[in-house]
Amino acid sequence: MTTTTKLRAEDLAALRAEIDEFNTAYADCLDDGDLNDWIGFFTPDCIYKVLPRENLEQNLPLAVIYAEGHGGLTDRVVGVTKTTVYRKRYLRHFITNTRIRSVAHDATGGDTVRAEANYQVLETLPGEYTKILNAGRYMDIFTRQGGALKLKERLCVYDSEMVPATIVYPL
Amino acid sequence: MTTTTKLRAEDLAALRAEIDEFNTAYADCLDDGDLNDWIGFFTPDCIYKVLPRENLEQNLPLAVIYAEGHGGLTDRVVGVTKTTVYRKRYLRHFITNTRIRSVAHDATGGDTVRAEANYQVLETLPGEYTKILNAGRYMDIFTRQGGALKLKERLCVYDSEMVPATIVYPL
Amino acid sequence: MTTTTKLRAEDLAALRAEIDEFNTAYADCLDDGDLNDWIGFFTPDCIYKVLPRENLEQNLPLAVIYAEGHGGLTDRVVGVTKTTVYRKRYLRHFITNTRIRSVAHDATGGDTVRAEANYQVLETLPGEYTKILNAGRYMDIFTRQGGALKLKERLCVYDSEMVPATIVYPL
Repeated sequence: MTTTTKLRAEDLAALRAEIDEFNTAYADCLDDGDLNDWIGFFTPDCIYKVLPRENLEQNLPLAVIYAEGHGGLTDRVVGVTKTTVYRKRYLRHFITNTRIRSVAHDATGGDTVRAEANYQVLETLPGEYTKILNAGRYMDIFTRQGGALKLKERLCVYDSEMVPATIVYPL
Repeated sequence: MTTTTKLRAEDLAALRAEIDEFNTAYADCLDDGDLNDWIGFFTPDCIYKVLPRENLEQNLPLAVIYAEGHGGLTDRVVGVTKTTVYRKRYLRHFITNTRIRSVAHDATGGDTVRAEANYQVLETLPGEYTKILNAGRYMDIFTRQGGALKLKERLCVYDSEMVPATIVYPL
Repeated sequence: MTTTTKLRAEDLAALRAEIDEFNTAYADCLDDGDLNDWIGFFTPDCIYKVLPRENLEQNLPLAVIYAEGHGGLTDRVVGVTKTTVYRKRYLRHFITNTRIRSVAHDATGGDTVRAEANYQVLETLPGEYTKILNAGRYMDIFTRQGGALKLKERLCVYDSEMVPATIVYPL
C-alpha cells in the first residue's frame, strides 16, 4: 500500500536539495568522471530513456535510447566507450529548476519521489567552440534504498527533434 | 511605515530557497504548463516589463512588453495564444544565481522582497536545433500575501538589443 | 596540522548554499557590478588561473590568464578597463552543479574547502545575438577568514581550446 504524503516546507526544501546533490553527482560522473560509475545512480530494475518531447506528447513509445536495468545501462556504456575512440568530445551539464511532483511512502518504509529538472548539455569538439548539444527535462522516479536516493526511472525528454549523431553518450 | 530588515543567514537562505521554488514553478508554467496559470504568479496590481539592458541603463522607459495588472497580463496571454497558432515552438528556462537585494516589513505585517536572478531561455523551433532565445536578469519586487510570495513587479532585462520577432511569449 | 572533516548532511547542505551565495555575488560583480570589487572575493595571497581542460589533463602549466595575489588581480582589472574602451559587451554567468570535494580544519581554527561548480558565460556584443563565450568548471580552494569565505585559489578550466579574443574579462 502506498500513501501519498504532503511534506512540510522545510522537508520539501531538504528533499529538493538532496535531489540537486544527486543530479550534481550524476552530471559530474558524465562530464568529468568515469562513465562506469554512471550505472550506480540507478536501481537494478531501472528504466532509462532518451526521447523527444514530441513523442512524449503524442504518446509515441519511440525513444532514441532505451535501456532496462543495470544490464541495459552496461550495454550502453560499452557502446559509448567503443564509439568515442573515434572522436573525443567534452560534455558539460547544467541542471536547474528542480521540482518535486509527488512523494509517497510504501508499506515497507521506502520512499518514491517523482521529480523533474531542466537540463542543458553543452558539447565541445576539438578545435570547435562550445555549443548546445541537447536541452530538455528529466522526468524522474527516485526510490530511497538504504538511505540514498536511486533512479528507478529517468526519462530525458529533449526539446529538439533534431538529434545530433553525437548523442551516444548518456544525458 | 516600512522597516528594512537584516535577516539572519539561515532565514536568508530559506528565503532564497523559497524564491528559487517560485521561479521554478513560474518557468514550469511557461515551458510545460498552461499559460493561463502564469497570471497567478502576480499580484492584481502588478507591473510586468520586458526591456533591453541598454534602455534600463540609459533610463529610457521603452519596453518591448509592458503589462499592468491581471488585465494587462490577460491581454498578453490572449495575444500569445492567437499568435502561436501559426508556429509551434518549445521554450526552456534556466534560472540561476538568485540574489536578495533587500527585505522590508510594513505596518500590516506584509513583506516586500527585492531580488534578482539570471535567466536564460532556450527556444526550439520544429526541425531546428535548440538555440538561445533570450538571456538577462529578472529584477523583481515580491510581496507576501496569505503566506505565499507573489510578484508585484518583474522586469525582464535582457542583454541583447536584438529582439527576435519570436518574443511574444512572456519570459 | 590539518584535519579532514566528515560533515553531517545538514552542514554540507548549508556549506553548499554558502558557496552558491558566494558564486552568485561573484558573478553579479562581473556581470552587473564594479570590476574593482572582484578582487575582494580573493585572499591577498590567491592564485587565479584561466586554462583549457586539455592543459589540465596533460599537466601542462600553460594558462591564458595567470594572476597571483591582489597585485596580480589588480593588473588584470587595469588591463580589462583599458581594453574595454574599444568595444562594449555584456556578460552573464550561469553557475550551477556546485559540489564539495573536501573540508578540512587547521590548528588555528580556519577552514579549507575544496569545491567545484559548472559555469557558463554568455556574451552579448552590440548589435549581435547572445552567444556562449565560455563554459567549463571552477576548481576552487576556499578559506574562511573572519567568518566569510574567500578564494585562495580559483582555476577556471574551460572545455573549448578555442579561446575567443574577447576573453580579457575575468570569468
